[in-house]
Amino acid sequence: MDIADWRRRIDELDQKLVALLNERAAAAQAIGRLKRQTDMPIYEPDREKEIFRNIRRANQGPLPDRELVQLYERIIDVMRKIQRVQIDGGGQATTPARPTEIEAESEE
Amino acid sequence: MDIADWRRRIDELDQKLVALLNERAAAAQAIGRLKRQTDMPIYEPDREKEIFRNIRRANQGPLPDRELVQLYERIIDVMRKIQRVQIDGGGQATTPARPTEIEAESEE
Repeated sequence: MDIADWRRRIDELDQKLVALLNERAAAAQAIGRLKRQTDMPIYEPDREKEIFRNIRRANQGPLPDRELVQLYERIIDVMRKIQRVQIDGGGQATTPARPTEIEAESEE
Repeated sequence: MDIADWRRRIDELDQKLVALLNERAAAAQAIGRLKRQTDMPIYEPDREKEIFRNIRRANQGPLPDRELVQLYERIIDVMRKIQRVQIDGGGQATTPARPTEIEAESEE
Protein backbone atom coordinates (compact mmCIF):
# COMPACT_ATOMS: atom_id res chain seq x y z
CA MET A 1 0.00 0.00 0.00
CA ASP A 2 1.29 3.48 -0.82
CA ILE A 3 0.59 6.72 1.07
CA ALA A 4 -2.57 7.46 -0.99
CA ASP A 5 -3.97 4.00 -0.10
CA TRP A 6 -3.31 4.53 3.60
CA ARG A 7 -4.94 7.96 3.45
CA ARG A 8 -8.06 6.45 1.89
CA ARG A 9 -8.03 3.92 4.73
CA ILE A 10 -7.74 6.77 7.28
CA ASP A 11 -10.66 8.62 5.63
CA GLU A 12 -12.81 5.48 5.97
CA LEU A 13 -11.81 5.11 9.62
CA ASP A 14 -12.64 8.78 10.23
CA GLN A 15 -16.15 8.26 8.85
CA LYS A 16 -16.66 5.47 11.38
CA LEU A 17 -15.07 7.48 14.19
CA VAL A 18 -17.34 10.47 13.53
CA ALA A 19 -20.40 8.19 13.61
CA LEU A 20 -19.29 6.54 16.88
CA LEU A 21 -18.40 9.84 18.55
CA ASN A 22 -21.88 11.07 17.67
CA GLU A 23 -23.49 7.93 19.07
CA ARG A 24 -21.51 8.51 22.23
CA ALA A 25 -22.64 12.15 22.33
CA ALA A 26 -26.27 11.08 21.93
CA ALA A 27 -25.87 8.70 24.89
CA ALA A 28 -24.28 11.49 26.95
CA GLN A 29 -27.26 13.70 26.11
CA ALA A 30 -29.68 10.98 27.15
CA ILE A 31 -27.86 10.68 30.48
CA GLY A 32 -27.98 14.49 30.75
CA ARG A 33 -31.76 14.42 30.42
CA LEU A 34 -32.06 11.70 33.07
CA LYS A 35 -29.71 13.63 35.37
CA ARG A 36 -31.84 16.72 34.99
CA GLN A 37 -34.89 14.77 36.10
CA THR A 38 -33.12 13.44 39.18
CA ASP A 39 -30.86 16.39 40.10
CA MET A 40 -27.70 14.32 39.70
CA PRO A 41 -24.37 16.14 39.22
CA ILE A 42 -22.76 16.25 35.75
CA TYR A 43 -19.26 15.70 37.04
CA GLU A 44 -18.94 12.25 38.60
CA PRO A 45 -15.27 11.48 39.23
CA ASP A 46 -15.87 7.79 40.00
CA ARG A 47 -17.64 7.22 36.70
CA GLU A 48 -14.86 9.03 34.85
CA LYS A 49 -12.24 6.84 36.55
CA GLU A 50 -14.25 3.80 35.44
CA ILE A 51 -14.21 5.05 31.82
CA PHE A 52 -10.42 5.44 31.93
CA ARG A 53 -10.05 1.94 33.41
CA ASN A 54 -12.24 0.54 30.64
CA ILE A 55 -10.32 2.17 27.80
CA ARG A 56 -6.93 1.14 29.21
CA ARG A 57 -8.20 -2.42 29.49
CA ALA A 58 -9.48 -2.32 25.90
CA ASN A 59 -6.26 -0.87 24.52
CA GLN A 60 -4.27 -3.35 22.43
CA GLY A 61 -1.98 -0.76 20.81
CA PRO A 62 -0.18 0.54 18.86
CA LEU A 63 -1.45 3.66 20.67
CA PRO A 64 0.42 3.93 23.96
CA ASP A 65 -1.91 4.17 27.00
CA ARG A 66 -0.77 7.71 27.72
CA GLU A 67 -1.73 8.95 24.27
CA LEU A 68 -5.06 7.13 24.45
CA VAL A 69 -5.74 8.75 27.82
CA GLN A 70 -4.84 12.16 26.33
CA LEU A 71 -7.39 11.61 23.58
CA TYR A 72 -10.01 10.51 26.06
CA GLU A 73 -9.47 13.52 28.30
CA ARG A 74 -10.60 15.65 25.36
CA ILE A 75 -13.49 13.28 24.55
CA ILE A 76 -14.71 13.40 28.16
CA ASP A 77 -14.40 17.21 28.23
CA VAL A 78 -16.53 17.59 25.13
CA MET A 79 -19.10 15.05 26.34
CA ARG A 80 -19.38 16.81 29.69
CA LYS A 81 -20.01 20.08 27.85
CA ILE A 82 -22.70 18.40 25.70
CA GLN A 83 -24.30 17.03 28.84
CA ARG A 84 -24.19 20.41 30.56
CA VAL A 85 -25.99 22.04 27.62
CA GLN A 86 -28.60 19.27 27.81
CA ILE A 87 -29.17 19.98 31.49
CA ASP A 88 -29.02 23.79 31.43
CA GLY A 89 -30.41 24.52 28.00
CA GLY A 90 -32.89 21.70 27.43
CA GLY A 91 -31.37 20.27 24.28
CA GLN A 92 -29.41 23.08 22.63
CA ALA A 93 -26.36 20.88 22.09
CA THR A 94 -27.28 20.36 18.45
CA THR A 95 -26.76 24.04 17.59
CA PRO A 96 -23.46 24.81 15.86
CA ALA A 97 -22.52 27.55 18.34
CA ARG A 98 -21.17 26.73 21.79
CA PRO A 99 -23.61 28.12 24.35
CA THR A 100 -21.50 26.91 27.27
CA GLU A 101 -18.57 28.94 26.04
CA ILE A 102 -20.61 32.11 26.18
CA GLU A 103 -21.65 31.29 29.73
CA ALA A 104 -18.13 30.32 30.72
CA GLU A 105 -16.39 33.18 28.94
CA SER A 106 -15.10 34.77 32.12
CA GLU A 107 -13.48 31.49 33.17
CA GLU A 108 -11.20 31.38 30.12
CA MET B 1 -33.35 3.04 29.34
CA ASP B 2 -31.99 4.21 32.70
CA ILE B 3 -28.56 5.73 33.42
CA ALA B 4 -26.95 2.32 34.02
CA ASP B 5 -28.19 1.11 30.61
CA TRP B 6 -26.81 4.19 28.85
CA ARG B 7 -23.49 3.73 30.62
CA ARG B 8 -23.25 0.16 29.41
CA ARG B 9 -23.97 1.48 25.92
CA ILE B 10 -21.16 4.06 26.33
CA ASP B 11 -18.76 1.36 27.50
CA GLU B 12 -19.53 -0.67 24.37
CA LEU B 13 -19.01 2.39 22.17
CA ASP B 14 -15.70 3.08 23.93
CA GLN B 15 -14.47 -0.44 23.12
CA LYS B 16 -15.17 0.24 19.45
CA LEU B 17 -13.64 3.72 19.61
CA VAL B 18 -10.42 2.39 21.17
CA ALA B 19 -10.15 -0.25 18.42
CA LEU B 20 -10.74 2.33 15.65
CA LEU B 21 -8.31 4.85 17.15
CA ASN B 22 -5.69 2.11 17.22
CA GLU B 23 -6.40 1.17 13.60
CA ARG B 24 -5.96 4.83 12.73
CA ALA B 25 -2.69 4.97 14.68
CA ALA B 26 -1.42 1.89 12.83
CA ALA B 27 -2.21 3.59 9.50
CA ALA B 28 -0.41 6.76 10.67
CA GLN B 29 2.61 4.61 11.56
CA ALA B 30 2.55 2.97 8.14
CA ILE B 31 2.51 6.42 6.52
CA GLY B 32 5.36 7.44 8.86
CA ARG B 33 7.46 4.53 7.58
CA LEU B 34 6.73 5.46 3.96
CA LYS B 35 7.57 9.11 4.67
CA ARG B 36 10.87 8.08 6.20
CA GLN B 37 11.76 6.22 3.00
CA THR B 38 10.94 9.22 0.82
CA ASP B 39 12.01 12.13 3.10
CA MET B 40 8.49 13.58 3.17
CA PRO B 41 7.58 16.02 5.96
CA ILE B 42 5.36 14.85 8.86
CA TYR B 43 3.38 18.05 9.00
CA GLU B 44 1.36 18.51 5.83
CA PRO B 45 -1.13 21.33 6.30
CA ASP B 46 -3.09 20.55 3.12
CA ARG B 47 -3.67 16.97 4.15
CA GLU B 48 -4.79 18.10 7.61
CA LYS B 49 -7.26 20.57 6.05
CA GLU B 50 -8.61 17.69 3.95
CA ILE B 51 -9.13 15.59 7.10
CA PHE B 52 -11.09 18.41 8.75
CA ARG B 53 -13.22 18.84 5.60
CA ASN B 54 -13.94 15.11 5.59
CA ILE B 55 -15.04 14.94 9.20
CA ARG B 56 -17.27 18.02 8.91
CA ARG B 57 -18.90 16.49 5.86
CA ALA B 58 -19.43 13.18 7.72
CA ASN B 59 -20.87 14.87 10.80
CA GLN B 60 -24.59 14.27 11.24
CA GLY B 61 -24.79 15.40 14.87
CA PRO B 62 -25.69 15.68 17.66
CA LEU B 63 -22.03 16.73 18.13
CA PRO B 64 -21.70 20.33 16.93
CA ASP B 65 -18.98 20.78 14.28
CA ARG B 66 -16.88 22.90 16.62
CA GLU B 67 -16.77 20.20 19.28
CA LEU B 68 -15.97 17.55 16.68
CA VAL B 69 -13.14 19.73 15.37
CA GLN B 70 -11.86 20.16 18.94
CA LEU B 71 -11.76 16.38 19.35
CA TYR B 72 -10.00 15.95 16.04
CA GLU B 73 -7.37 18.55 16.84
CA ARG B 74 -6.31 16.27 19.70
CA ILE B 75 -6.54 13.14 17.52
CA ILE B 76 -4.35 14.75 14.83
CA ASP B 77 -1.84 15.92 17.48
CA VAL B 78 -1.48 12.42 18.87
CA MET B 79 -1.26 10.83 15.42
CA ARG B 80 1.42 13.30 14.37
CA LYS B 81 3.38 12.39 17.50
CA ILE B 82 3.01 8.67 16.71
CA GLN B 83 4.21 9.32 13.17
CA ARG B 84 7.17 11.37 14.37
CA VAL B 85 8.27 8.52 16.65
CA GLN B 86 7.95 6.17 13.69
CA ILE B 87 10.20 8.40 11.59
CA ASP B 88 12.79 9.36 14.24
CA GLY B 89 12.84 6.25 16.35
CA GLY B 90 12.16 3.45 13.91
CA GLY B 91 9.03 2.07 15.52
CA GLN B 92 9.18 2.96 19.19
CA ALA B 93 5.60 4.19 19.22
CA THR B 94 4.40 0.94 20.78
CA THR B 95 6.33 1.56 23.99
CA PRO B 96 4.24 2.84 26.88
CA ALA B 97 6.53 5.82 27.56
CA ARG B 98 6.52 8.89 25.35
CA PRO B 99 9.94 9.14 23.72
CA THR B 100 8.97 12.36 21.92
CA GLU B 101 8.33 13.99 25.24
CA ILE B 102 11.85 13.30 26.40
CA GLU B 103 13.25 14.81 23.20
CA ALA B 104 10.92 17.78 23.39
CA GLU B 105 11.31 18.40 27.11
CA SER B 106 12.92 21.81 26.67
CA GLU B 107 10.00 22.97 24.55
CA GLU B 108 7.44 22.46 27.30
